[in-house]
Parts: sequence; structure tokens; C-alpha cells
Amino acid sequence: MTSSFAFDVVCGDGAARRGRLRLPHGTVETPAFMPVGTRAAIRGLTVDQVEALDPDIILANTYHLHLRPGDTLIAELGGLHTFMGWTRPILTDSGGYQVFSLATRRRVDETGVTFRSHLDGQLLSLTPESAVEIQARLGSDIAMMFDECPPWPASFETVEAAMERTLRWARRAREHFERVRAGQVPDVPMSTPGQVQFGIVQGGTFPELRDRSVAGTVALGFEAYAIGGLSVGEPTDIMYEMVAHTAAQLPVDRPRYLMGVGTPLDLVECVARGIDMFDCVLPTRNARNGQLFTRRGPIVIKHAQYARDPLPPDPECGCPTCRRHSRAYLRHLFLAGEMSAAALNTVHNLYFYLDTMKAIGKAIESGSFSSFRRQFHEAYARRPAE
Amino acid sequence: MTSSFAFDVVCGDGAARRGRLRLPHGTVETPAFMPVGTRAAIRGLTVDQVEALDPDIILANTYHLHLRPGDTLIAELGGLHTFMGWTRPILTDSGGYQVFSLATRRRVDETGVTFRSHLDGQLLSLTPESAVEIQARLGSDIAMMFDECPPWPASFETVEAAMERTLRWARRAREHFERVRAGQVPDVPMSTPGQVQFGIVQGGTFPELRDRSVAGTVALGFEAYAIGGLSVGEPTDIMYEMVAHTAAQLPVDRPRYLMGVGTPLDLVECVARGIDMFDCVLPTRNARNGQLFTRRGPIVIKHAQYARDPLPPDPECGCPTCRRHSRAYLRHLFLAGEMSAAALNTVHNLYFYLDTMKAIGKAIESGSFSSFRRQFHEAYARRPAE
Repeated sequence: MTSSFAFDVVCGDGAARRGRLRLPHGTVETPAFMPVGTRAAIRGLTVDQVEALDPDIILANTYHLHLRPGDTLIAELGGLHTFMGWTRPILTDSGGYQVFSLATRRRVDETGVTFRSHLDGQLLSLTPESAVEIQARLGSDIAMMFDECPPWPASFETVEAAMERTLRWARRAREHFERVRAGQVPDVPMSTPGQVQFGIVQGGTFPELRDRSVAGTVALGFEAYAIGGLSVGEPTDIMYEMVAHTAAQLPVDRPRYLMGVGTPLDLVECVARGIDMFDCVLPTRNARNGQLFTRRGPIVIKHAQYARDPLPPDPECGCPTCRRHSRAYLRHLFLAGEMSAAALNTVHNLYFYLDTMKAIGKAIESGSFSSFRRQFHEAYARRPAE
Repeated sequence: MTSSFAFDVVCGDGAARRGRLRLPHGTVETPAFMPVGTRAAIRGLTVDQVEALDPDIILANTYHLHLRPGDTLIAELGGLHTFMGWTRPILTDSGGYQVFSLATRRRVDETGVTFRSHLDGQLLSLTPESAVEIQARLGSDIAMMFDECPPWPASFETVEAAMERTLRWARRAREHFERVRAGQVPDVPMSTPGQVQFGIVQGGTFPELRDRSVAGTVALGFEAYAIGGLSVGEPTDIMYEMVAHTAAQLPVDRPRYLMGVGTPLDLVECVARGIDMFDCVLPTRNARNGQLFTRRGPIVIKHAQYARDPLPPDPECGCPTCRRHSRAYLRHLFLAGEMSAAALNTVHNLYFYLDTMKAIGKAIESGSFSSFRRQFHEAYARRPAE
């Protein structure tokens, strides 16, 4: 059995950690932000442009790629890395969240979820086992287990039932993953030998349920663990509390991945609570809507105040967009509906997120994370330079 | 009076020429293809991506930029080059063609054209003089005179009247350009000192009208001349005849620009008839529709036959898209509606056009243009490798 997985905590500062995660396609320096490439593409960018931004790892989506172009097609073409021309690590989300948020006429039972494709209405299903198989064919470095995501707000009983089912699915997912990894499942190639599987902790905003979920999931022996079901509408302070509470119980020698979070401040605050990995659509989606993150808070590029503004979006930024273009030009592109507006804004926002993670890592290494955290908050609350 | 304009014919092969055009922002090797950046952006690409494709000159549009963001705004920000972050030569089309094809409720009289903006219905006008002033503010290297473009087909009388008016407008345009260049027009800065102005020959598909248009336009002493009013629906063989007929009468020591043409075969055929400069939306527009030009003819990437095709779009191509991506991946991006499909296809098509122009130039230099021309036709008629 191939295994190139390893995680080393290089150093810590309070609960914040600086680590190094070894995966089949390369090493990820943590804390890490993973740009979201749902359909085997970071929306708005070419793979060349993504590579120039230098993320250690990106994320793709099991649900979307299963629907189109199909995981068997991708496996035939050599797996997701060859298919999209990306050589570094990839994490695939299991599709759980998408089934619960995108698919129509959804039916959940103990077996899994039956649903209609949001593309063509075709009747499909995802189960803990099929999510393992799809991700094996895709050949990501990290496969996520298939979980049930309750809505927010939901009653204790609803969240408890989803958490308990997620635990039962976790056992089936892990067992099936080990069978696939051992080559015991016909017609399911492991496109990336050495693929690892992360478990997902659920339990909503109920500490007691989080505790039971952690205990049950960790007992199954996944390579690492994610915290799911947060940033789904609950207040930020409750999210932070849940992150701190849950992260503290996860194994110290495994990376901790907070799914779907968050704003730049969330990244800083959740690293402070022990998180190592993040993904979020915020930098890419908001870029397409004309919101640019800067070290002094976000700006909305379409506003009239930028019409004749010769400054780059963030004068303190070294990204390709800020090195070349003014707010005035970016505003023009956005209002004209030019696709390059989305590309240039996405380059900037992802650079900002990745650069923030690097700065966090350096601050942890030099033991100055708490002063970094305070300064980041102060700068972020300031108005953009004008 | 600043003047960095010069044109040298390096060598010729039949009517085909290999030349060098010196402009304020740099040198253009001819024959040259100018990617179309209507709204101060090549649609689908960032300026970084355009620069990597290495065109000597790009085109932008007077009509569109006058409407949005406005030429006074661009002048305030230092002119078009600074505004868009592009350092090499730019040619601005005068807006004549766009007024006649895009604007609504158009009224043409001897003064110029009054029309309603296709964006917001605002009542605007363009005249030979205002087109000069707008382009002076934009600060392109080459400004085009404002012409009247008759539809096709049109009667001899209609085309004659438009050609005669274009000649009268040409005189006004040239006189006004010289006044602006001499600094005699208040509030009209020449954002690019050394800007030059090209005249436009009209006359439809009537050789006699073309002859009169050439004589009258050349008499006005523009820095160079363009052939307008072709590739507007007339049969290709008639277009080629008109190009040969008209180009032969234009001054040999000035570059000849064929406006809005054309397919890869058109480029080869019109260079053979004495043309030095081209622009066309075909490579960029068709890229967005999923058509990729290859050395063996165009392919339509959405076709099912490419679903599992691991080959690059054109196995003989060295562009960033072909070096990295398969037809299968490009088809997936196109069908998924990913913006990067447009970017990758545009990169490929523009690379193909620019590379074809380079190959034509080399063939002329080595005296092998006629065999190049034959081989290009033969390869282009072949089916793409599968």
C-alpha cells in the first residue's frame, strides 16, 4: 500500500500551528487556503494563472465532476491531475454539501441520498461507498467522506440524527476506502496511489454533539479530520466558539480542516483556534461580483468613486493585477462586462488570501502571531487608501 | 512636431511584402495581425495574457471608448496605454463602422452622424473632426479617419455617394488632425505625441469607385492607407479581386491595412495581394463560441467526438493552451460554461493567427512565399488529426 502521507507540526503559537503536510502530489505548508475549483477549474482563471498564484493545493468537487464530465471519463484520461493539467495536490469535497444545497427532489435514507441532477434532472444517488469510488477514480490526493449536512437553524434532535447518521456513514466510508485502496473493489481504479481520506465532524452548534462526533469519527482512524456544518448562517461568535471547542479535541498530530470558511478575519481567527486548512468560495465568487479584498478591508470596484482612481486596488499588494492595473481600469472592465474583470479580480483576491496565509505562517514561526492578529484586525477595519 | 513614423519594406515576394513600421510605442513587423481590443481589452484575456502572445500592435475602438468610460477620462488618466497598462502600439478604429452597425436611430448628413448610444440611448454624434479629437485624447499610435460605410449589397449610386462623402470627410479629418497635432485646438491634448492618421479607401465592389477613392484619399497625404468596406457579405473571390485591384494602386512606401479581414486563408491570400496589416474579431469571437483554428482547419470543441480526446487542439501548436490542455478538458470547460474556456480558446486562436503571420513573414524573407501559400492551403483543407 502506497503511503506518502505525513503531517508535521513545525511550530506553534498558542493554539495556532505552522505545519507541513505531505501528499502524493507534493507538500502543503499549513496553515493553508485551498482555492475552490469546483468543476476542475478555478472559475475565471486558467490553470497557468492559478499556478502563478502558487497555491500548494486546490479543491475540486465530487458532485459536480460526477455529473459532468463524469469520473469514469476522468479516470480514463488519467485522473483529475492529468485531465486539468494541474500537478500539485487536490482535495475533493465528497459532494455531501452540494447534494444538500443544489440537487432537487432529494431523498435521504440510511443508504445515502437519491436526487435529481441540477443540470438535466437525471435520477442519481450518492452513498458513502459511491463517494469513495468517485473520488478514487478522480484521483485527488485527499478524499472527503460523505456526510449529511443539516440546515441551520435546526433542532437538537435534527442535528443529532444527522450527526449519528454521518457517524454510521463514516464507518462505511472508511471501510470501503480501505477496500478500494487494497484493490479489492473491481472496476474502481485508485487514480492516485496514496490517496488519503479525511473524516468530517458534524454536530451543528451543539457542543455535546460535536464531542460525540469527534470521538466517533476519530475512532475510525481517518488520516485527518475536517469540521463541517459551520459558516452555514450561524453568528460568527458562535462559529468561532464551535471551532475552538472542536479543534481542541482533534488529534494534535493530524491537520484540521475547517470546511467552507471564510472571510480574511475568519482565517486569522480560526488559525488562532487551531485550524490548519481552509477552503471558501468567497475570494473567487466575490471577485466576479466586483468585490476586492484589501489589507484595509474590501472595496466594491463598481462604485463611482473609483472612476478616475489611478491607484491599484490595494497599494500594498504585489499581485499581477495590482502591479499593472488601476481601480479606474478595473471599474471600466467590470461595468463593460469584460470577462477579464473577473479574471483580474480573482487573481487579486486569491493572491490576497494566499498571501495572508503565508503571513500568518511566518508570524507563527517567529512567535509574533498575536501581534500580527491584532495588527491585521486594525488594518482591516481602516478605510481603503484613496 | 514629433514624428517617429517610418515604414520600410524589408523585402518582397511577388506582391507580398515584409516590412517594418515604426510608431511612437514601438515597431510593428509586417505583415501584422492586430488582435481586437474593442473596449480597451481583448475580450476574455488579461493584458498579461495578451503580452505573452507577443503581438506588436493591438486595436481599440473609438466608438465604444467614447461611450464608456469616455475619452476625456482616459486622457486624464494618461491616455489609453497607461489606462489599460499596455505599452506597445495601439490603432484606434474611428468608430465609423460601429456607428453604422451598432447605434440606433442613426441620421447621416454632411456634418457627420447623429445616433443614439446602444448602451443607454443617449443622443450623440460623431463627425470627422470629433473622431480626430477623441482619438487624440485616447492617444493611440494610429488614428483612423471617420468614414461612411455603405451596406452590402448596395447600388452603384449609393456606394458612390458614400465614397464621395467619405472623401470630403477625409479632407476635413486630415485638416483637423493637423490642427490638433500642431496644438491649435484648445482642450484637445494629443495623449501620444507622434500619433499618425490613416486614410480609408471606400468604393464597395466597384473598381471605378475604388480608383477614384484611392486617388482622392492619397492626394490628402495621410501617413498610410486602409481599405475599408470589404468582407461585409460579398463573395470571397470578389473581395480578393477588390483587394488586389486597390492595393496595387496604393503607395508602395506606405503600409496597407485591410480592415476587418479575415479567415486564416484570407490573411495568406491578401498578403499575396499586397496587404501589410489586418484586424479581425474572428479569432477572438469564434474562440468564445468554441471554434478553434488549427493548421488543419477549424474544429468545434463542443462536439462529442472530443469528449475523451487526449490530444491538444492542434498537435502542431506551441501555444500555452496546446502545451497544457487536451480537447477533452477544453470541451468540458466549454460545456460547463467556465470562463476559462473562452480565455484558453482565445489564447490558442490568437497565437495561431500571430504565428501564421510570422510564418508568412519568414516565407517572404526566404523567397518561398508561393510554396508556403500552397502548403498552407493544402494543410488547412485536411481534417484535424484525431
